[in-house]
Formats: sequence, structure tokens, C-alpha cells
Amino acid sequence: MSMDFNALAQQFTEFYYNQFDSDRSQLGNLYRDESMLTFETTQLQGTKAIVEKLTSLPFQRVSHRITTLDAQPASANGDVLVMITGDLLIDEEQNAQRFSQVFHLIPDGNSYYVFNDIFRLNYSS
Amino acid sequence: MSMDFNALAQQFTEFYYNQFDSDRSQLGNLYRDESMLTFETTQLQGTKAIVEKLTSLPFQRVSHRITTLDAQPASANGDVLVMITGDLLIDEEQNAQRFSQVFHLIPDGNSYYVFNDIFRLNYSS
Repeated sequence: MSMDFNALAQQFTEFYYNQFDSDRSQLGNLYRDESMLTFETTQLQGTKAIVEKLTSLPFQRVSHRITTLDAQPASANGDVLVMITGDLLIDEEQNAQRFSQVFHLIPDGNSYYVFNDIFRLNYSS
Repeated sequence: MSMDFNALAQQFTEFYYNQFDSDRSQLGNLYRDESMLTFETTQLQGTKAIVEKLTSLPFQRVSHRITTLDAQPASANGDVLVMITGDLLIDEEQNAQRFSQVFHLIPDGNSYYVFNDIFRLNYSS
């Protein structure tokens, strides 16, 4: 199983950020009505609220670059936990912003959906 | 329930880092044999391996400062997911290191244990 969850985490994360960076209005397929998103200080539940939040973010162009990606099995049922740290480059800005994100993925037939999603920018303190 | 998981996450995290910073050899009570720790690039399973890793880290004095703490229910069974970002101050170093950590907590009677633990320093890229 150890190949499986690492490969899944890698595949999911690449798909997610590619989709986010090319057309984030299409991310709804990855969520369900019970899914939760914490985006900075905003907490949302459900596909519709989550997609509305993501599409309303005030930037046009965005690029996620992954620095670290770590995965673990999160249950005996095939759930997978993924933590990513990386850089976010927004619009014309020259300086990337660091971010941390965690996904809790739950199997659904031959696919997975996002049950938990927590995103934070890492501001300098 | 929303008070519960946020209060639990806050309480757990404060307890965890206080214990880590005062005597990390005592953290074993928070893990079980099925618990997993990813510490930077090292992956470990089980209380004994996890405590050995944490106690063998090459510093004497350490202080965690929490910058952000976010929690979500991770299942219908009372599991809680916590993501923390913060600063780590080690020994005599003047500059804090940023870190990100995620805990997946599972209820066990009146208490909780750590099923998943992923820790990463956030190096500048």
C-alpha cells in the first residue's frame, strides 16, 4: 500500500494545482457537499461555497510551486492525508508567497474527493 | 460540535508544544503503535520509534511559537485535523525557523491520540 498512497498524493496534488492555476472554477469535481475548506481565516462547507470562494479570489494569474509533499494513510479505509508546502506566485508580483496546505482525501469508487482542505499563507513574523 | 473540535485542537496543540519544549521524551503518551510520524524526510511508525526520533533531535533547548492554528472535523467519529504554522527557536540561535505541522487526532475514550503527524521546516526557496 505504501506505493499507493504516495503515488495518489503526488498525482492528486499535481492535478489539483494544475487545475487551480489554469481554471480554478473547475475544481468543484474534487469536493462534495460535506467537504470543508479553511482558506486563511474563512471557513466554508460544500462544493458550491468552496468553488465560489476559490473563483472569487482577487487575482487573475496564479502559479503554485511545490516545495515539499508528504503523505500518510489516514485510516484503514484508504483515506490519505497530504501536506504540501510551497510558493505561490500571483499576477505580476515578483516575490513568491510561502504557503502550507493540507488535504484529507477519501476514496469514492475509483476516485477520491477532498473531505478536508486547510490553506494558509506563511507570512513572516 | 464546532466549539468542541476547535477547543480540542487548541488545547491539544498547546499541551503538545509545551511538553515538547519542556521534556519531549514524555510525548509517547500521545501516540499509539499505529501512529505515524513524518519528520522532514524521515518516516516512522509506532510510539517507540517516534519517541526515539524526537528525543534524538540534535538540540537541547527548543521553543515552538504558534502563528496559525486551524482545525476541522476529519470524520463523523470525532476525528480532528489540525494544521499549525509557526516558528521554532533552537538553542542559542537568533533566527527562528518557520515550520508547518499537521496532526490527525483520533478519540480514545475521554482522550485523543495522534494517528498522523507530519512536520516540515519551511526553508526559503
